[in-house]
Amino acid sequence: MNDHPSVQSVLVVGTGLIGTSIALALREHGVTVKLADQDPGAVRLARELGAGDDWAPGGARVDLAVIAVPPQFVAQWLLDLQKTEAARFYTDVASVKVLPIAQAAQLGCDMSTYVAGHPLAGRERSGPAAARADVFLGRPWAYCPGPETSPEAVEAVRSLIKLCGGNAVEVDPVSHDEAVALVSHAPHVAASAVAARLADASETALGLAGPGVRDVTRVAGGDPGLWTVILSGNARPVAEILEAVAVDLAAAAAALRAVSVDDDAAIGRVTELLKRGNAGQRRIPGKHGGPPGAYAVVHVQVGDRPGELARLFQVAKDAGVNIEDVRLEHAPGLLLGAAELSVQPEAVEVLAGALRAHGWHVP
Amino acid sequence: MNDHPSVQSVLVVGTGLIGTSIALALREHGVTVKLADQDPGAVRLARELGAGDDWAPGGARVDLAVIAVPPQFVAQWLLDLQKTEAARFYTDVASVKVLPIAQAAQLGCDMSTYVAGHPLAGRERSGPAAARADVFLGRPWAYCPGPETSPEAVEAVRSLIKLCGGNAVEVDPVSHDEAVALVSHAPHVAASAVAARLADASETALGLAGPGVRDVTRVAGGDPGLWTVILSGNARPVAEILEAVAVDLAAAAAALRAVSVDDDAAIGRVTELLKRGNAGQRRIPGKHGGPPGAYAVVHVQVGDRPGELARLFQVAKDAGVNIEDVRLEHAPGLLLGAAELSVQPEAVEVLAGALRAHGWHVP
Repeated sequence: MNDHPSVQSVLVVGTGLIGTSIALALREHGVTVKLADQDPGAVRLARELGAGDDWAPGGARVDLAVIAVPPQFVAQWLLDLQKTEAARFYTDVASVKVLPIAQAAQLGCDMSTYVAGHPLAGRERSGPAAARADVFLGRPWAYCPGPETSPEAVEAVRSLIKLCGGNAVEVDPVSHDEAVALVSHAPHVAASAVAARLADASETALGLAGPGVRDVTRVAGGDPGLWTVILSGNARPVAEILEAVAVDLAAAAAALRAVSVDDDAAIGRVTELLKRGNAGQRRIPGKHGGPPGAYAVVHVQVGDRPGELARLFQVAKDAGVNIEDVRLEHAPGLLLGAAELSVQPEAVEVLAGALRAHGWHVP
Repeated sequence: MNDHPSVQSVLVVGTGLIGTSIALALREHGVTVKLADQDPGAVRLARELGAGDDWAPGGARVDLAVIAVPPQFVAQWLLDLQKTEAARFYTDVASVKVLPIAQAAQLGCDMSTYVAGHPLAGRERSGPAAARADVFLGRPWAYCPGPETSPEAVEAVRSLIKLCGGNAVEVDPVSHDEAVALVSHAPHVAASAVAARLADASETALGLAGPGVRDVTRVAGGDPGLWTVILSGNARPVAEILEAVAVDLAAAAAALRAVSVDDDAAIGRVTELLKRGNAGQRRIPGKHGGPPGAYAVVHVQVGDRPGELARLFQVAKDAGVNIEDVRLEHAPGLLLGAAELSVQPEAVEVLAGALRAHGWHVP
């Protein structure tokens, strides 16, 4: 028995990455978890990971059903589960919210027991094997109660979020979909369009690639099938942002074509876009939810040998410095790199001094 | 005296990030370095960092002059330096190559002693204070000999690249500019255009931001003035790529607007772009110049306390496992996070087992 009496038993429908991760997190709190998936192999793998037991339709009613299937299938599952009174309350985890809510209302689902939800967790991998109980820790988890939603249903979903370690954010469905279009879906398509240019690039061009283009295009490695479904389910908000980005890029291209030593106005239009980019980039929250750039960075040269980083962190520990973040920058083709250690600004000199005293090269 | 007799003395014109980093790298090999900059403060700072001594115009001729000024000023500096016979050979480090070479020829510079160059090093920071001798280690350093270039000039520039630890890549100027447009300049503008959408975003939307959009937009934090100069100097190749990206994004937006349950063709156009993005992203070389994704990843939950990472790396060291890369994923607002440790695939089980044996939570 956990601290949330309204969530003692949960049914997870869809044992992919998110569904299985939720199941694992709930199991850590002693919640009884039942698992269902149209793929028996996915259920078996989730069960073997300790995520719960197979669901037997028609068995005892659970407190809460978590529908972790693609957005366009949420409403039908909700209807079917409600018909058999599978659970007292229902939620989903789809990355868009307007579509499943509208479809559920259209199908005549009981909207008093359903609270749409969306945990903002990583999606670079997929499948139950990649599931981890801690993927929701401290992350935003949006939920969208409607006018008909009962307070008990909201309480059950808030308990679920708390048990998973998420940060509950109440938001209306339209605002939710516009928000994720802006901070996730449209950036994904833009990254894909940049990466697409590299598909036929020469080896010479790829040989000159550095960390910048790797960062810009990293999310473009995501699963096209999964992302097509996500984007299709949030089509209008994503389209609006992509159109605005396309206009900005076409304008930048036109300005660059007009650039000459004398055309200050054209050059100014390029600068203006870059400045807007600066302003937007600065507004993205940093780690720990704090303001971006709150830490100072210490550079240190490191060799690529076992124990090198252990020694380095030991020196930091002995100096009483907490390393907030670390970024390794390997020199391509060399077993030598630079570590960027993010620390509180007041710890910079302490750490740099300690590292130098132990023979590290801190430029 | 270093191993490169043709590069015993070097003049660095422009003591910004790149110029000062080159000077520091050369000093480590005992090269005599003279420093010049239109800003006396920048020269003083570079000198205090140990990068060399002030240049006295009209003094002894150096072996090689490195012109580290913005692209549009390279040719005039080259002409002025050649008039006073300041050096035997000349190179530059501007991020575009067609423009300075064309201007140099136009101004009547001696093209036999000049080899245009471009070290592909990071540009997120700027100024001499951010300079580090190791920024060129193992990185590509393009150089563009022309039909009139003397073999001795090429030899001097190749020696410079070697002394700085760079990886010399001979390329013609047109191919160079098209390559950097593709892997650096156009991605920068695209990142800026995505980030620009966030400038007026709601706090709700920004609260749902995750690691994906942070990666896509990171380079958009670069200096707009510096990047305007870079983009203006490579206007046509960058414009061509931006136009293609804008067309792809507009087409994706149109397809999304046409998306309905029945419009499979529109959905297919979205998938097709995402697949092209996959293909392009996979072609970007990974760390150590190896193929992307050659390492396997071990996840481990870490607390945000001094010594936590030291303990973790010590366990890896004791297990004989070399950690190739580390990525810390902090949970926003929580002093707890997950570390992603990249290791050779065959070391995954060894490391996971060792960490678990020491009480770490490895999901």
